[in-house]
Amino acid sequence: MAGSDPLPSWNEGSTKQSILDFVRGVTTAGEPYFVTPEERIAVFDNDGTLWSEQPFYFQVAFVFDRMKAMAPEHPEWKDNPLYTAVLAGDMKTVAAGGVKGLLELATITHAGMTTEEFAKIAADWIVSARHPKFDHLYTDVIYQPMLELLAYLRANGFKTFIVSGGGVEFMRVFAEKVYGIPPEQVIGSSIVTKFEMVDGVPVLTRLPELNFMDDNVGKPVAINMHIGRRPIAAFGNSDGDLQMLQWTSGGTGSRFGLLVHHTDPLREYAYDVSPLGKLEVALTEAAAKGWTVVDMKNDWNRVFAFEA
Amino acid sequence: MAGSDPLPSWNEGSTKQSILDFVRGVTTAGEPYFVTPEERIAVFDNDGTLWSEQPFYFQVAFVFDRMKAMAPEHPEWKDNPLYTAVLAGDMKTVAAGGVKGLLELATITHAGMTTEEFAKIAADWIVSARHPKFDHLYTDVIYQPMLELLAYLRANGFKTFIVSGGGVEFMRVFAEKVYGIPPEQVIGSSIVTKFEMVDGVPVLTRLPELNFMDDNVGKPVAINMHIGRRPIAAFGNSDGDLQMLQWTSGGTGSRFGLLVHHTDPLREYAYDVSPLGKLEVALTEAAAKGWTVVDMKNDWNRVFAFEA
Repeated sequence: MAGSDPLPSWNEGSTKQSILDFVRGVTTAGEPYFVTPEERIAVFDNDGTLWSEQPFYFQVAFVFDRMKAMAPEHPEWKDNPLYTAVLAGDMKTVAAGGVKGLLELATITHAGMTTEEFAKIAADWIVSARHPKFDHLYTDVIYQPMLELLAYLRANGFKTFIVSGGGVEFMRVFAEKVYGIPPEQVIGSSIVTKFEMVDGVPVLTRLPELNFMDDNVGKPVAINMHIGRRPIAAFGNSDGDLQMLQWTSGGTGSRFGLLVHHTDPLREYAYDVSPLGKLEVALTEAAAKGWTVVDMKNDWNRVFAFEA
Repeated sequence: MAGSDPLPSWNEGSTKQSILDFVRGVTTAGEPYFVTPEERIAVFDNDGTLWSEQPFYFQVAFVFDRMKAMAPEHPEWKDNPLYTAVLAGDMKTVAAGGVKGLLELATITHAGMTTEEFAKIAADWIVSARHPKFDHLYTDVIYQPMLELLAYLRANGFKTFIVSGGGVEFMRVFAEKVYGIPPEQVIGSSIVTKFEMVDGVPVLTRLPELNFMDDNVGKPVAINMHIGRRPIAAFGNSDGDLQMLQWTSGGTGSRFGLLVHHTDPLREYAYDVSPLGKLEVALTEAAAKGWTVVDMKNDWNRVFAFEA
């Protein structure tokens, strides 16, 4: 690292310094809060933390595109106000359906095929669909400073995990290539899968039933289930990440919590409340607990790699 | 590896050769079935595959010891035939209760505390309880040839996972030290945990309710959920591992399946059918699918490290 800046997209200041100080403290032998490499677990929310979540979660765009592709085979959808709203692009009605409505839409579009078939559908979509504002692939609408942070942590012996409310099998089709995070380190929401032999071939079939919702109190539960160690660093951007940050910072020794605050209406978006999430309680607790809050507008000199 | 035998406890012969041939084939660049390191996933059952499972699953011994420790606070247990059978050491009655009875016992002894409290209870037990036949710690009653196999695979770029019907939080207290398998690579059965703040402190409380049974058809489901890649090698010893081996060997390219057959009544045990599991369907399918079957008596020149 000597002489080179591991976080060039981060402006100098207390935010960047808090990251550097934490990492130096837990990785320097002899320091009071030194942590052995195997305990250097860092967990990242995805939507709004590693990539954008506006104007709506990117996986919602995938759901809508799937609905449109499937609609010709489902004439009965015309009698369902939520389904017709999706097909008409009536986002207001869709938003009014809330998380419950979205879960229903996700379930019908994400089930009824094998895991391999689903992975192919998602992989085909992610290399072709484009973000409505930026006109780039969704996998380009990721935060350059967070990519640098992931690489910096890994270079310092950290194991980086995604812990997201997004669908685990959706994220896994791009997480390794885009974030350098392998499938076994991606934790997310899921629907039920069923093992069966079909014509002598073993398959996992995706069923239209929620298995686990990896949000809010679900995040520490999933961390414990999948990782089995308490992270020493957690990165989020909304109240859905609050319990993950609480759980992480509740351990002994040096702990790091960070919230990405979306304050840049020009280069990205400025919001505390989005149709499906908000940053409110966690922001108050950040002040009390000493978590780092990224002021995107002022702390990042670059948001996306595609910027001029 | 040049000049030294990576598997010294394995006798020369077709069993050992099948392992060496498989590993050479998937790790040698230019070979038709070469596999990149990140796809080198190997999954291991635990009970009867990495350590012994006789005269009963070691975790059952833990359950019984917990019952005895908890009994003074539960005078009402005297009215329950299953509970009194455990306290009286009446294994016949306990066995007659089957998996259902054991699950009930596991649930009442494994719930009602935080995850950290449970880990301490399990860790204290595992460093003190002794196996009834061998009079060694249970963590000494592990198969030396399988330890060599784990190390050999890892030396060849494999990531090794446990995928066991045993309790995930029970196995994690010893798996890293004993097998070199970190908590995040241990997959097992689980009960429900709940995140809550207790006096301002975040805890995960263990509830008396089964969350997931990682056996039979559950194993490929858990592999997909936790790892998100199909393994290229799977190691088991009973029909409970059948679907894991089917799922593993159902992929393309070179695949390796192995069953440990308990054929040594002197150094270990000889059985196809145990009170809670059997090796029957999987043994037949091994012949049809070309899976390797370890004849413990003849294929291993050493079973346990504590042997003279």
